[in-house]
This record gives sequence, C-alpha cells and structure tokens, in this order.
Amino acid sequence: MNHLWTKRLVNLLRLSALIVAFSSSISASANNVILIIGDGMDDNQITIARNYLVGSNGQLLLDQLPMRSAVQVLSVDEDNPKRAIYVADSANSATSMATGGITSPGRIGTTAGADLDMVNIVELAKQQDIKIGLVTTASITDATPASFYAHVNERGCENPEAMVNYEKYAGIVIDCSQDLKGNGGLGSISEQLISSGVDVALGGGMKHFTPLAEGSEQTVLGLAETNGYKVISDAEQLSGDHGGKLLGLFSPSTMPVRWHGEDGREAEKAKTSFLHRFHNMLGSVTYPEPMGCEDNPGYAGMPSLAAMTATALTELQSDEASFFLMVESASIDKQAHGRKACGSIGELQQLDEALAVALEFAKSSPDTLILVTADHGHAAQILSERTIYEGIDIPIYSPGYLVRVNTPEGAIMTVNYATNNFVSEEHTGISVPLLTNQEGIGRVSAMIRQPDIFTLVKDYLLD
Amino acid sequence: MNHLWTKRLVNLLRLSALIVAFSSSISASANNVILIIGDGMDDNQITIARNYLVGSNGQLLLDQLPMRSAVQVLSVDEDNPKRAIYVADSANSATSMATGGITSPGRIGTTAGADLDMVNIVELAKQQDIKIGLVTTASITDATPASFYAHVNERGCENPEAMVNYEKYAGIVIDCSQDLKGNGGLGSISEQLISSGVDVALGGGMKHFTPLAEGSEQTVLGLAETNGYKVISDAEQLSGDHGGKLLGLFSPSTMPVRWHGEDGREAEKAKTSFLHRFHNMLGSVTYPEPMGCEDNPGYAGMPSLAAMTATALTELQSDEASFFLMVESASIDKQAHGRKACGSIGELQQLDEALAVALEFAKSSPDTLILVTADHGHAAQILSERTIYEGIDIPIYSPGYLVRVNTPEGAIMTVNYATNNFVSEEHTGISVPLLTNQEGIGRVSAMIRQPDIFTLVKDYLLD
Repeated sequence: MNHLWTKRLVNLLRLSALIVAFSSSISASANNVILIIGDGMDDNQITIARNYLVGSNGQLLLDQLPMRSAVQVLSVDEDNPKRAIYVADSANSATSMATGGITSPGRIGTTAGADLDMVNIVELAKQQDIKIGLVTTASITDATPASFYAHVNERGCENPEAMVNYEKYAGIVIDCSQDLKGNGGLGSISEQLISSGVDVALGGGMKHFTPLAEGSEQTVLGLAETNGYKVISDAEQLSGDHGGKLLGLFSPSTMPVRWHGEDGREAEKAKTSFLHRFHNMLGSVTYPEPMGCEDNPGYAGMPSLAAMTATALTELQSDEASFFLMVESASIDKQAHGRKACGSIGELQQLDEALAVALEFAKSSPDTLILVTADHGHAAQILSERTIYEGIDIPIYSPGYLVRVNTPEGAIMTVNYATNNFVSEEHTGISVPLLTNQEGIGRVSAMIRQPDIFTLVKDYLLD
Repeated sequence: MNHLWTKRLVNLLRLSALIVAFSSSISASANNVILIIGDGMDDNQITIARNYLVGSNGQLLLDQLPMRSAVQVLSVDEDNPKRAIYVADSANSATSMATGGITSPGRIGTTAGADLDMVNIVELAKQQDIKIGLVTTASITDATPASFYAHVNERGCENPEAMVNYEKYAGIVIDCSQDLKGNGGLGSISEQLISSGVDVALGGGMKHFTPLAEGSEQTVLGLAETNGYKVISDAEQLSGDHGGKLLGLFSPSTMPVRWHGEDGREAEKAKTSFLHRFHNMLGSVTYPEPMGCEDNPGYAGMPSLAAMTATALTELQSDEASFFLMVESASIDKQAHGRKACGSIGELQQLDEALAVALEFAKSSPDTLILVTADHGHAAQILSERTIYEGIDIPIYSPGYLVRVNTPEGAIMTVNYATNNFVSEEHTGISVPLLTNQEGIGRVSAMIRQPDIFTLVKDYLLD
C-alpha cells in the first residue's frame, strides 16, 4: 500500500496548487451548491470503505461532516405511476434529485407513463445565469449526470447511434425513437449536453460524442466545439487556463477505477466438498482465499475525481455569480454490480478526496452548501469472517459470491454479494445517507424524501 | 389489516390512560435517559417496516426525530483482542453501549481474552440512587438487556441450569463454569439480575427464573421475591399499583411476535424449471407467491412493548431522582434470523409505539434524553419486484430466500435473505442509525462510535 499513499500525496500536492487559486476569490453574494453523489453508496459501502481505508475505528472525511440525514428513495411503476416500487436505479433517483419529481427506473428527466419533460435544476439555474458543472467517473452521458440536463425516454439513449436500434445487452433493444429530433424530440443525451448550456462537463464517455449528430455532417464533438466548448481528453490538460466552456472526456465510456482485487480477482463462490452434494449438512466448505486491493493498471493516466473537481471549481468560481456543481463517484455502483469490493473501495476513496477539495473551496467561499449523498442502495453486505454458527459441524456459507479482503489494520473483511445469479448484482431499496457541511444545518431534517434534495438545492441556489 | 388497526387504536387508548399519570409529575431536577434499541434494526429493516406500515412516502415516528447519527459498531477478536472484526452480535454491541468498552461477540460485560468485568451504566447509576428499568420482548436475560447488568463469559449462561453443560444448539456446549458462584463468579445472568438493584424488569424469560439458584433451596424467582421484587406474569397485572421493585415475565423465553406471514409462511427459495438444472441460462424461474402479514395467534395475551414501557415509566418517574430505562425490541433480529419479514415488521412497529410512549412522557419531563438505535446490522435486503435485467431471457433470481410482501399501499415488496445456507441468517457489519429527541441536539455528532453511546448516557444522567 505504501506506494499508493505516496502517489496519493503527490496528487494531493498537485491539487493544493489548484486549490490555492480558490482563496483569491472570496465572494459575498454568490451562493454555491456542490452536490456529491456516490452511486450506490449506501451505509454498507461506506462501512466497507471505512474499514479498509481508515480502520473500523477511524473516520472518513464524509463521516466528519456535521449533519446527517436519511433519504427515502422513491420510485413508481412505469405502467401504473400511482403504484410505488421499492428499488430505484440511477436514472429515476438522479431525476428525483435533479427535478424534485418521482419517476420510474430507466427514465431521465421524464415522467413515468406520460413521458413528459420534468424541469431540472440546471434549466432553472441557467435562467439566472448561474454556472453549472458536472463531474463524473462514468460517461458524462450516464444516468446520474444525464438526469441533470437531459430528457429522454430511456437512459440508454446516450448518443445519436444509440437512438436507432441500440442493443443494450443480450437482446434488449432500447427504443429511443420518440426522442429523435426528427420526431420532435430533443435528441440523444450527448446532443442534449452540448446544447444545455452546462459550463463544465468532465468525465468519461468519448464514444458518445464521436458519432455524427442527428441530421448533421458534424460529430457531436465537432458541434460541441461549434457551441463554444473547449474539448480536452488528457488529464494533463485539466490544469490549463481554459476560459469559456469546457468538455473533458478522458475515456471511451466509464473511467477505469483506481483499484482492483489482487491479480484482478473478483468475488468467488465458497467451494463445498463432494459429500455436500448429497445433503446440505454433509461435507465441508472452503471460503475464497483472502486478497488485498492493488493498483488497477487501466487507471494509469486517468485524472482523479478530486483533480476534475478542482478544475471544475476553478472554472466555475466567480465573485458575482453562483454555481451548481454535481460530482459523481459512479463506480461504487458499477464495481458492486461486478462484485468487485476493491473497485468500490477505491472509488469511494475518490469521493472522499473530492469532498476534501470541496471543503477546501468552501473555506474561502463559505456560502457554499456541500451535500454528499447516494442515489440508491446496493448488493454488498459485510459478513462475519467466521459464521456466528461456526461451532456447528456442518458447512455454513453464503449462497452468493464472497470477497475476503485483507484490511490494512490486519483483519479480514468478508463482503457478500447475493442478490442474484446473474453476471451483475441488483440494487437494493435501503434508504441512503445525506451528509452536509455547516451550511446544511437548519436546512435539512433528519429524514427527507429524495425529491426534497432538489428543493434544498433550489432554495439555497436561486433567488 | 383493518381489524389490526382497530385493535391498535384500542391499545393506544388504554395506554393513554397510563400516560395521563405522567403529566402529574413535572420534575425540575431529574435527568432521565430512555435508550430504545431495535435489535438488528439497520436501515434495511427500517425501510422495510416503513414501506409496509406507512408507505414508502410516509414516515414512521422514529423518522420524525430531529437528530440522526450513524454509529460505528466495533468488535474485537476473542483470541487477539487488538484485532478488529467487522460483525458484532447483540452481546458485544450491547456491552459497548452499556460499558463504553469494546469486546468480542458472545461476551456480556466482560473483556475479550482477559475476561475482566467491565463497569456498566447501571452500576454507576445505582451509586447515585438513579432508578433503573429494563424492558424487552426477548428474555430479560437475553444478551441485550443482560449487558446492562451482568458480567459473564458467554451470553448462554442465562440461568443456574445453563451454568453446567448447557447445550446451546447442535453440539455447541457453553462453558459457564468460571462464572459459577462456587468458582468465585457472579453466577448466571438471571441470578445477577435479581441482585443487580434493577428497579423494573419486564419481558420474557420465565424459564430462566424457575431453576433453583446456585447453592440455594429457592428458585431464582423465589429469591427475587425475597430480594423485594413483586413478580407478575400476566399483561393485566401491568396496570396495577406496584410500588417497590417489579419483575414481569410474560413468556417462557422470547415473547411471541405480533405478526407473522400469511398462513405462517416464511421466506422461500425461488423455484427453477427442470431445464435450469443443465445450465444457469436455461429454463425459467418462479418467485414465491406474494403474501400479506397477519396476526400471530401466539401473540394473544402478550403485553405490547408500549404497554411495558408505559408501566416502566410509571414506576420509574419521580420528582427528585433520575432514571435510566432501556427498551429493547428484540425480535426485529430474531425474526430476521428466521427469514420472517412480517415478524420483523410487526416488531419494529412495536418499537415505534414504545417511542410514542417515551415521547409523550418527555412532554411532561423535558429533561429526558431519548435515544433510538440498533446494535448491529442484519441480513434482510429489499430487492426490486422484478430484476433490473428482466428483459433478458434467462432465469434471474436471488440464490437466497425471498419473502414477497403485499403492502397496504398496493405494491409488492421483495425481501431477500441470503447470508448463509443455514436455518438462521447472519448479522452484517453495516453501521447503524442513532436517532435522538431534541435533547440530543448538540450532544451527539453525525457519526459516533458505539461505545460513545455509554458516554452520552453517562454524561446526561450522572452528576
């Protein structure tokens, strides 16, 4: 781990140079909001990351925020929008935060059933010349960021090519036709981004900008430049002096994560002996070998979430105008779908580092409301290293997939993924945390509905 | 459901008669603490209960408390007490709350490895003539209440008979010999209760009081009466005028829960078709039929947790002296071990009703700190009614056990239990919530360690 911490220190020193810039612009009139979303970051994920990163007795930076609430995640059935459903996806939950409404899973800024566009915070903010930044480790067109600027039928409608017979996976074809410009729609998500007026957009997803825009001879990327965006695709370019609007796309789709399991290992099933085939109480069980987390080679050259957040803040800050910045740590969720505990842990560490940048910014701009929350729960659970029934002489084990992580404090943490038998785990319906800085005190109650995050942001940000 | 609500109303009206008594004794000097523990009540359990009891958009009473924190649950390894382990049981987590220390699973008020007695809040409070009440739906000798007054090697040492070769289950023999009075110990948990000075103890567990006390010709129950306890065993006796010390034991062990699944159904495995035996991607899957929750006939005649709480408050309240009351809703955990979602929901409803009694009391005694928390996480997860991969033509299902609950708001909530293949599920290592009334504001930070609950109680309660 030591080399990781050295590298991290170097990165933090680089960031501090950026952060120095913040201190020169103390604003009296601007009210800023930084909304940090850990995708799938329920209290299971936070506890897993805490145990690994600072020990079970330690505190992450987000643990040290002064105000905590629980958020009720609300979804409705597409076929019967008056009927509750109890598990959300990133599309409908981010739509709740972005618009204050409730919709069905898969939808981006549109109502369940009726498919009406829902007014989002970015549209309201632009009316008051408030600057907008979006930062993510996913594609900038992925469900969470998209919900803040786009309106489509289905989250898969990410680019002009996907608008026509896009096969999402295994025979699932997304029908985006009603959102085609030719059919009176607003076009794909990437096309909507470049005409949304968003000032800074940093993340992955280059592949969604290389197709030709609908009815145009230019690519979406070309149109972005026509629309005044400076386009960058290399981490080194983050620290330049940009001015104007900035679009940074650092990978074809989701950005590679910082860590993975030793030798790339993922969660594995417990192995039972031959005798166990004959009866549940017979034979023996072998749990997966413990593993450490290690650098993911694919991450080399990627900007950190903190570095992107610092650049966004440098671009957005001004003496007079307010800004809204959404920062998403996307792969807590994506790595949990893939049963990769180390990937989720490294990604949550990225979120905590981005929070450090935000808090540093708020020191010089105290009228900055910082919110840290999640969109929905996820599959991972911490199980005991040994079953609580270990004295019983029968093989007891999870029916799902397990990662046993060697933690730096010298213990073994068992993470269980057991929501389905598919290649990708399910979300869960647990309420999620909301943490705020000092500015949240008195503005947030101990329990809120997810759509109320929109109201909270709006009331703080807009006149 | 309607008959249930009617019965509940009648019960609440009965309670209100008891509560009227509170208003006559406004105290200026007494500082009281009511610590309400939902055993296993993590945010999964709260969300499951909320969805069923008030709808996903509704709020339980505990959701309306003004202050929320997250609690880090801390455990250590019995064989190496400097080594963290990441999942607790009720014994070591309640010991943390009762003593401010950290110990290993299974231990009651004793240190890991060295087996030293840890001073608990009841012992400190008795030194200042503070009155003590303990209320639970488990045996009053079960791990959670026991941690507040007893010191033993292992939670199974509940009564004099269990002190000698007690077989807990399936060949697991508990060695309690070191705690025998004859060996210089304090005796079994039930014997320790009746000499602890606890003023009011209400719950289940009569069977732990019927054996002869060690070295005595009296039963533990007989000794309790000798020690000044009035013993009651019928719900009707709760409302009498007791005076002195009160021991209420309303069932042989754990009190039966209010609800169970339709026709007594528990969680069931999804069923797959014949073809699925040959390959994971072949065949079809049938999920368990949805069910409602219904009255558990075994609950008839049991006092509610709210009724016991009201009696305890009536007995404990005084103009001059403070009191400490611990109230445990025990079967959120016990029913989750048994994969019984309706049981856990009804038990969490009991907790919410007990909280109503506590809040009503605090109206007339404003110097009352009310804490609602859990001891550890549990197995249950809410899954989507339909997998998020439902469009894919392969059978996708949880490898664990499912309960599909028809909720009163007209939807189906799927609860997943998938931590092991045994007859009883595992705990999980998620952080747990802490909610407080107005008195908690400024006294609790947004994230605390579980042992800090002891400090919080001590600082509020003691001079």
